[in-house]
Amino acid sequence: MGTVGQVTPQEMHFSEPLPLKSGAVLPAYRLMYETYGTLNAQRSNAVLVCHALNASHHVAGTYAGQERSEGWWDNLVGPGKPLDTERFFVIGVNNPGSCFGSTGPVDANPATGRAWGADFPVVTVEDWVDAQARLLDALGIPQLAAVIGGSLGGMQALSWTLRHPQRVRHCAAIATAPSLSAQNIAFNEVARRAIVTDPDFHGGHFYAHGVVPRRGLRVARMIGHITYLSDDAMEQKFGRELRAAEFGYSTQDIEFQIESYLRHQGDKFSAYFDANTYLLITRALDYFEPAREHGGDLARAFAAARGRNFLVVSFTTDWRFSPARSREIVKALVDNRISVSYAEIAAPHGHDAFLLDDDRYHRVVRAWFDRIET
Amino acid sequence: MGTVGQVTPQEMHFSEPLPLKSGAVLPAYRLMYETYGTLNAQRSNAVLVCHALNASHHVAGTYAGQERSEGWWDNLVGPGKPLDTERFFVIGVNNPGSCFGSTGPVDANPATGRAWGADFPVVTVEDWVDAQARLLDALGIPQLAAVIGGSLGGMQALSWTLRHPQRVRHCAAIATAPSLSAQNIAFNEVARRAIVTDPDFHGGHFYAHGVVPRRGLRVARMIGHITYLSDDAMEQKFGRELRAAEFGYSTQDIEFQIESYLRHQGDKFSAYFDANTYLLITRALDYFEPAREHGGDLARAFAAARGRNFLVVSFTTDWRFSPARSREIVKALVDNRISVSYAEIAAPHGHDAFLLDDDRYHRVVRAWFDRIET
Repeated sequence: MGTVGQVTPQEMHFSEPLPLKSGAVLPAYRLMYETYGTLNAQRSNAVLVCHALNASHHVAGTYAGQERSEGWWDNLVGPGKPLDTERFFVIGVNNPGSCFGSTGPVDANPATGRAWGADFPVVTVEDWVDAQARLLDALGIPQLAAVIGGSLGGMQALSWTLRHPQRVRHCAAIATAPSLSAQNIAFNEVARRAIVTDPDFHGGHFYAHGVVPRRGLRVARMIGHITYLSDDAMEQKFGRELRAAEFGYSTQDIEFQIESYLRHQGDKFSAYFDANTYLLITRALDYFEPAREHGGDLARAFAAARGRNFLVVSFTTDWRFSPARSREIVKALVDNRISVSYAEIAAPHGHDAFLLDDDRYHRVVRAWFDRIET
Repeated sequence: MGTVGQVTPQEMHFSEPLPLKSGAVLPAYRLMYETYGTLNAQRSNAVLVCHALNASHHVAGTYAGQERSEGWWDNLVGPGKPLDTERFFVIGVNNPGSCFGSTGPVDANPATGRAWGADFPVVTVEDWVDAQARLLDALGIPQLAAVIGGSLGGMQALSWTLRHPQRVRHCAAIATAPSLSAQNIAFNEVARRAIVTDPDFHGGHFYAHGVVPRRGLRVARMIGHITYLSDDAMEQKFGRELRAAEFGYSTQDIEFQIESYLRHQGDKFSAYFDANTYLLITRALDYFEPAREHGGDLARAFAAARGRNFLVVSFTTDWRFSPARSREIVKALVDNRISVSYAEIAAPHGHDAFLLDDDRYHRVVRAWFDRIET
């Protein structure tokens, strides 16, 4: 197994506004993307990789001169890897509203000439899928061999089969859910409140004030991290280990290693992630609910996906998007007599497992891609 | 079953400083308490009720002229109730460091004449138990028939049997744990960071600035609430119900009922709870770990409790202090051949179940108290 090596992000400009689910439109916009492998002559071997909250178009490979710049799914995508770039032409695309290069809140709102900030239009999973479809148009790809994504990326993969079923033959939905639970929404809401109530947020127009709502972003990221890890994984990794030999008896200083870890993660994140993007992306998660337009009946929603082939993977210790939520997807597919492979991987890492190099998980993904004709 | 009726809080002043586990001392201090029922002539029917994070000495009954002023365990404590005030003399006491009347951060630091604020000494479960023992001294009660508490209160109940075993005959530890897990500490830490990084916290001396770190308290309470409820209970109660008929497509306005509920809980809490108390109490939770002084061996820690009789109760959907944590306590007791009744109640409400009126749960508590001789 090799690596895709050095890669270079590309950008594509779209002058036709994108109509959004909210009724608003995104005016002329830019998408950052990367590709790995070679598009075949029939243009039939393209695989789209959809990203989750804290990721981007940079799925695999490294950037020249940048250490530790591996793409976020580099362990899965490459020559001889489960998603084999010797067979497939793999595309990663950064969604609009993000802060990694595609048009987002830091860009100028053409109506005002100033940064969009909190006025950036609310984007949904469906809007992202539509934007991705336009990128495929521009690349001259009529149909995807497959779409794959984990977590929020898995929602986009599912949405592809509902919005553009004729343009995708296979769909892999990893560690995802057919909608957020009340608890999922609750965690998102606390994170958003932490950001929005940070005095440095300035109603989302903090760029003009030369500040960043870092306090809020830190808290948001700390909450996120707790939900990405399993209780067991956190216990294994940190337990009640102290930073010093003894208790220091302080309410504000760090006593436990887990505190140190969380603060570090919060600090790192708040230095590069955009607060408005955080709001937009958590809201896209909240809104996703394909069953809503079908009277709450997920099976009816998936009728549109008939003829596609699915892979659904969940991880036993993922309490953010538990196996039970993946089984809801599987049931809706089976109710439609849609072909689906389902794997429930006994992994200790919680939600994060979908990003990790787990042999059983990767063998399932590899076997599924191996059966796809190009 | 009746109610204890109208009650009046009392206060007791202590001029002898309380040595604390940290090595600091709490100078002269005041404890608020309430009692229900009658102390018998032998002074052998006293039951101490220990409170958790957001509660106080007001365990049962109501305050004159105050609607909805029922004590926090009014469904459990009263004439004919599971903890029967016709048989037992029940004591509720507010712990030092609290914001409900006992000496705490809002009181004046005798060394400076100004509010203690963040300089209030760090208090532990063991310190609270010692303070409670002094109250019993003052009330002329040599030995408790029983000590009972839920959650953080359960930790105090357990600690009684380790620190003052000769002064307590029975111990009921409800919905508690022998120590916090890494995940428990993590949630506490996020809540503390939200408070401490609120610009209105002013290093814990916000009283002098005439402000309150309400943003931080709101976020802290929202996080807490998520962990008090089970995933299922939240799903049952709120699910994905919207506040309006349709999505409004906003990142900052309320869309889902769960958001409205959490914001309301956060607002309410931030209006009455003291930020420094929140830090102190979550830290007391973090520090509790009786096994630490015994090489991590909980059974060795509980050797001190031999001869006591225990009741341990957990709730199946409590993911904050799961049944597995209660079973650790039971195992440590059994390893010491200590008498223990253990009930794992199939209740849907999560950690909050210990405060609710569940018939199976209350029957277990009633049966256990019925066997206690006074």
